[in-house]
Amino acid sequence: MKDTLIIFDTTLRDGEQSPGASMTQEEKLRIARQLERMRVDVIEAGFPAASPGDFEAVRTIAAAIRESTVCGLSRANENDIARAGEAVAPAAKKRIHTFIATSPIHMEKKLRMSPAQVIEQAVKAIGWAREYTDDVEFSAEDAGRSEIDFLARIFEAVIRAGAKTINVPDTVGYNIPGQYAATLRALIEKVPGADKVIWSVHCHNDLGLAVANSLAAVSAGARQVECTINGLGERAGNASLEEIVMAVRTRADVFPVRTRIDTTQIVPASRLVSQITGYPVQPNKAIVGANAFAHESGIHQDGVLKHRETYEIMRAEDVGWGANKLVLGKHSGRTAFRARLREIGIEIGSEEQLNAAFARFKELADKKHEIFDEDLHALMSDEAAAPEQEHFRLLSTRFHSETGERPQAEIVLSMGGKETRSHATGSGPVDAAFKAIEAITRSGGQLLLYSVNAITTGTDAQGEVTVRLARGERIVNGQGADTDIVVASVKAYLNALNKLHAGGEKLNPQL
Amino acid sequence: MKDTLIIFDTTLRDGEQSPGASMTQEEKLRIARQLERMRVDVIEAGFPAASPGDFEAVRTIAAAIRESTVCGLSRANENDIARAGEAVAPAAKKRIHTFIATSPIHMEKKLRMSPAQVIEQAVKAIGWAREYTDDVEFSAEDAGRSEIDFLARIFEAVIRAGAKTINVPDTVGYNIPGQYAATLRALIEKVPGADKVIWSVHCHNDLGLAVANSLAAVSAGARQVECTINGLGERAGNASLEEIVMAVRTRADVFPVRTRIDTTQIVPASRLVSQITGYPVQPNKAIVGANAFAHESGIHQDGVLKHRETYEIMRAEDVGWGANKLVLGKHSGRTAFRARLREIGIEIGSEEQLNAAFARFKELADKKHEIFDEDLHALMSDEAAAPEQEHFRLLSTRFHSETGERPQAEIVLSMGGKETRSHATGSGPVDAAFKAIEAITRSGGQLLLYSVNAITTGTDAQGEVTVRLARGERIVNGQGADTDIVVASVKAYLNALNKLHAGGEKLNPQL
Repeated sequence: MKDTLIIFDTTLRDGEQSPGASMTQEEKLRIARQLERMRVDVIEAGFPAASPGDFEAVRTIAAAIRESTVCGLSRANENDIARAGEAVAPAAKKRIHTFIATSPIHMEKKLRMSPAQVIEQAVKAIGWAREYTDDVEFSAEDAGRSEIDFLARIFEAVIRAGAKTINVPDTVGYNIPGQYAATLRALIEKVPGADKVIWSVHCHNDLGLAVANSLAAVSAGARQVECTINGLGERAGNASLEEIVMAVRTRADVFPVRTRIDTTQIVPASRLVSQITGYPVQPNKAIVGANAFAHESGIHQDGVLKHRETYEIMRAEDVGWGANKLVLGKHSGRTAFRARLREIGIEIGSEEQLNAAFARFKELADKKHEIFDEDLHALMSDEAAAPEQEHFRLLSTRFHSETGERPQAEIVLSMGGKETRSHATGSGPVDAAFKAIEAITRSGGQLLLYSVNAITTGTDAQGEVTVRLARGERIVNGQGADTDIVVASVKAYLNALNKLHAGGEKLNPQL
Repeated sequence: MKDTLIIFDTTLRDGEQSPGASMTQEEKLRIARQLERMRVDVIEAGFPAASPGDFEAVRTIAAAIRESTVCGLSRANENDIARAGEAVAPAAKKRIHTFIATSPIHMEKKLRMSPAQVIEQAVKAIGWAREYTDDVEFSAEDAGRSEIDFLARIFEAVIRAGAKTINVPDTVGYNIPGQYAATLRALIEKVPGADKVIWSVHCHNDLGLAVANSLAAVSAGARQVECTINGLGERAGNASLEEIVMAVRTRADVFPVRTRIDTTQIVPASRLVSQITGYPVQPNKAIVGANAFAHESGIHQDGVLKHRETYEIMRAEDVGWGANKLVLGKHSGRTAFRARLREIGIEIGSEEQLNAAFARFKELADKKHEIFDEDLHALMSDEAAAPEQEHFRLLSTRFHSETGERPQAEIVLSMGGKETRSHATGSGPVDAAFKAIEAITRSGGQLLLYSVNAITTGTDAQGEVTVRLARGERIVNGQGADTDIVVASVKAYLNALNKLHAGGEKLNPQL
C-alpha cells in the first residue's frame, strides 16, 4: 500500500496574493466548494489576521466545508494565531499554519532577531496554536536559503512543542530539484522526531521548477505538497496542483505515493479559478491549457488516431475535459436554474436573490442560446456584487463607430446613487467609454492591463474582460462579462473602480 | 572554464506546430533575426519537406542569418534529406537534423520496421545528410519510451556514420528528471564514441517537467538543449528557452555549463513570438510572464524595497524587462521609422513598400500618441499580408450599440476584388460583425477561440485580437490589431478566412 500524498491547496491564500487577484468572500467560498469536491486534503483558506474581510472569509469557509481540513495562516505571534484559531473554529477539521523566517538574510534584515530568539518565538507559537487545534503546521519562511543545521534545530524544537506538519518552503523559487531533494533528505535524517511528523514542501516557480522541486522532495520523503490551481501565485506563481497530481498518477511506477484527488474535477477547478481571478491560462499550459490534449491536424495520419497510446500518456477525460455540458437555455425554469447553481457550488440565500439572479439569467438567455457553467459563474459573480454596495453602477450605454470617424461613447452611471451622464470620443469604443467614465469619476486609475477572453466558444459567447488598474500602491483587477464586448469592458472598469473605492489594504505574507 | 551549453531553438519548427500557430515566411524571418540577436547557437528553421512554403522559409532564413547555425529537420529518407540540404545550403553555418522512431510502439505501429531495419535506415540517412554538411544531428523519436540497449546500438551506429549531435527526445513528455538523467548518463557511459559527440535533449511539457528534465540531463552530461520561446509547442509545449537559460545562469553554482545567450533579448523575443503566433503568455509564467517580477503591493513594507535581494533572485532588467522604450510618435519621420524597423529586425524591400508602411504608421500615430516596438510589429504583420494576395479585404465598417437595442454592424469587404456590403445584428458588435462577414463569405468556419490583449498599456493601446477558426481538419489563427477593438476583431476574422482560403496542408513530425 502506497503512502498518501497530502494535497494542500493554497489558491485562496498564496494564489490570492497575485496582483489584483483578490476575491470576494462569496467567490472564495465557491472555489473552496470546488476544492472540496475535488477532494483536496487541506484548503488554506486565507490569512485571517490580514484584514477583517480575510477573517470573515476563512470563517465562512470553515463553516461550510465538511470533507477537507480548513487551514488558516498566521505569523508566529499570539494575536495572529488567535485570529486564525477563531476563524477556523467552525471547521469539521481545522489546522493552524504558523511561520517565521529562518534564512540569515530574513532573520537579520526583516525580523531583526537572533537565531535563538527565532527558535523561542516559534516554540511559543506552536503552544499558542495548540490551544485551538492539535493540527498545527510550522513553516520556515525562506527555508530554501536557510542553513540546514539551523533548520534542523528549529524543526526539532517545534516538533517537540507539538507541530504535526513541517513545511520547508522555497519562498523565492531559487532551488533546483536534486539539491532541494537533498535538503529534505538531510532534514528527515537529521531531525529527532522526524518520523512523527508529515514533511511538506511549498515551492515557487521563478525558475520554472516549482513542480519538479515538489516532486523531487516527494521522492525524498515529503508527504504533503502545497500548491495552487493553475499555478496561481505571486510572481511566477506556485507549484501547479494539476501537474503534481497528474505526474504522481501518470508515473505511479516511479512515485511511492498516491493522492486522493478526483482528477475529473481538475479542469472545472481550473476554469473557475481563472474566471474568478481574471488570470488566463495559456493554451500551452500542461494539463489545463486549451491545447494540452489537442494535436495539430496533419500529424494523425501515421498513428495517433489508430493507436492512441502512441502519443497520449493521459486521457483528456480523466482530468475533466469535455465535462462542460450545455446546461441551460432560454426555456429553462427557475427550478432547473437553482438546481444547476447548486451543482456548481453556488447557494442562493433568499427568494429575492433567486428572483434577481433568475431575471438576469433570462436576460442573458435572450441574447445567447446556450448557457454553460462558465456563463452561470460569470452571471453570479456579477450578481454577488450587491448593487447597494456599489458606488459606481452602469445604467445605460450607447456606442457608435464608423470608418473615417472618431469612435464615440455615451455612458449613464449611478455614482453614489446620483445619476450622471457623459460623452467622449476615443481611439476606439472602449477607449471612448473609459474616457467618458473618467470624465465623471476622475478616479486617476492607471490602466495596466486589458484583456478579453470568450467564456465559451461560438460568436454569441460572452466576452469576459479583465481590467487592471493601479492607483498609488494599490492594484485591482476588475471583471465584467457581457455578450457585448464594449459593455463587458465598461462593467470591468466600473468593477475595478468600485474595488478602488472600497479601499482595503492588507498584508501578504511571503512563503 | 565551464562547458558551453548549446541552445538549440525550435520555435520555428516544433513551436510552429502548435494549433493555428503557423507563420508566414516574413514572420519566421523576423523571429529568426531576433533569435540571432539573442545569440541562439542553433535555429531549427523548419521542416523543408513539409511543403514548398516551409522549404522557402528555411532557405530564406539560411540566406539571412550569419551568426547562428541554421538547421533543417528531415525524416530519415533520401528525399527529405535532399530538401533539407538544399534549404540550408545558403547558410553560413548549416545543420541537417534527421530522425527516426526507436520505441517499440512506434517502430511496430507507425514505421512497421524491424529494429535492425531502423538502424540500417538511420545509418543511411547520416550518409545522405553528410553529402550536404558535416554538421549532422540524429534524433531517436520517442527515445523516452525506447529501450536503452536499442538506443545504445542505434546511437553507436550513427556516431560511426558521422553524426555529430545525438538527440534523446522525450516526445510525449512522459519522463521525470531523475530517471531521464539516468537514461542520459547510461547512454553516455555505454555508447562507444559518446565522447566525440554532443548529447542533446528535447523535452515536452505534458507533465510540466520539460525544463526540469532538460536541466537534469545537463547535469548528467547533455550539452545541447532543444527548446522554444515561451515554451511554445504542441499540446503543453516544449521546454522554455528562457527558463533553461535563466536557471543555468542563476544557479551557476550548481550547473557545470554556461550559455552564450544575451539574456536581455529574452523578453523582446517572448513578446515577438507571442504577438506573431497569437499565443498569449500567462501572467504567472516564469521569467516572461507579466507578473514574473511584480510584487503585490503591501508586502514591501517589511523588507523588499530596502533589501532587494530579500526576495529577488534575478533582476528584471537582466532578461529585458523595461526595454520597451517609447520609440516613435506623431512627428517621427520616414528615416526614424525605417531605422527603428531595422533595429527590430524588419527590412523593407522597396520604396513603395516603405511608403505604404509609413502611411499606415502615420494613420496609427494619429489615433495613438506613443508608438512602441509592439505596435510596429503589429503594423508590419498587417502590412506583410500583401493586399493583392488577400482574397478578403476590409474596406469599411460601421457599428452601433445602445442599451435596450440589438447591436448592429455594417461591413464593406472586397472579396476577390469585388466590393460587397452586408449588415447584421448580433448579441454584441463583434458577433454582429462576424455574422455580417459570414453572410458575405459563407466560410462555415467554426469559432474556437476569441481573445484580445492590449499590445501596450494605456487606454489608447491597440487591441490585438486572435481568432481561431476550424473548418474540417484545419485550424487557423487570425490576428488583427487596431485601436478599435471591433475593427481589430474584424481584421482578425478576415485574416483567418484568408488563411483558410489560401489552403496548405502540411506534415508535422513528432519529436
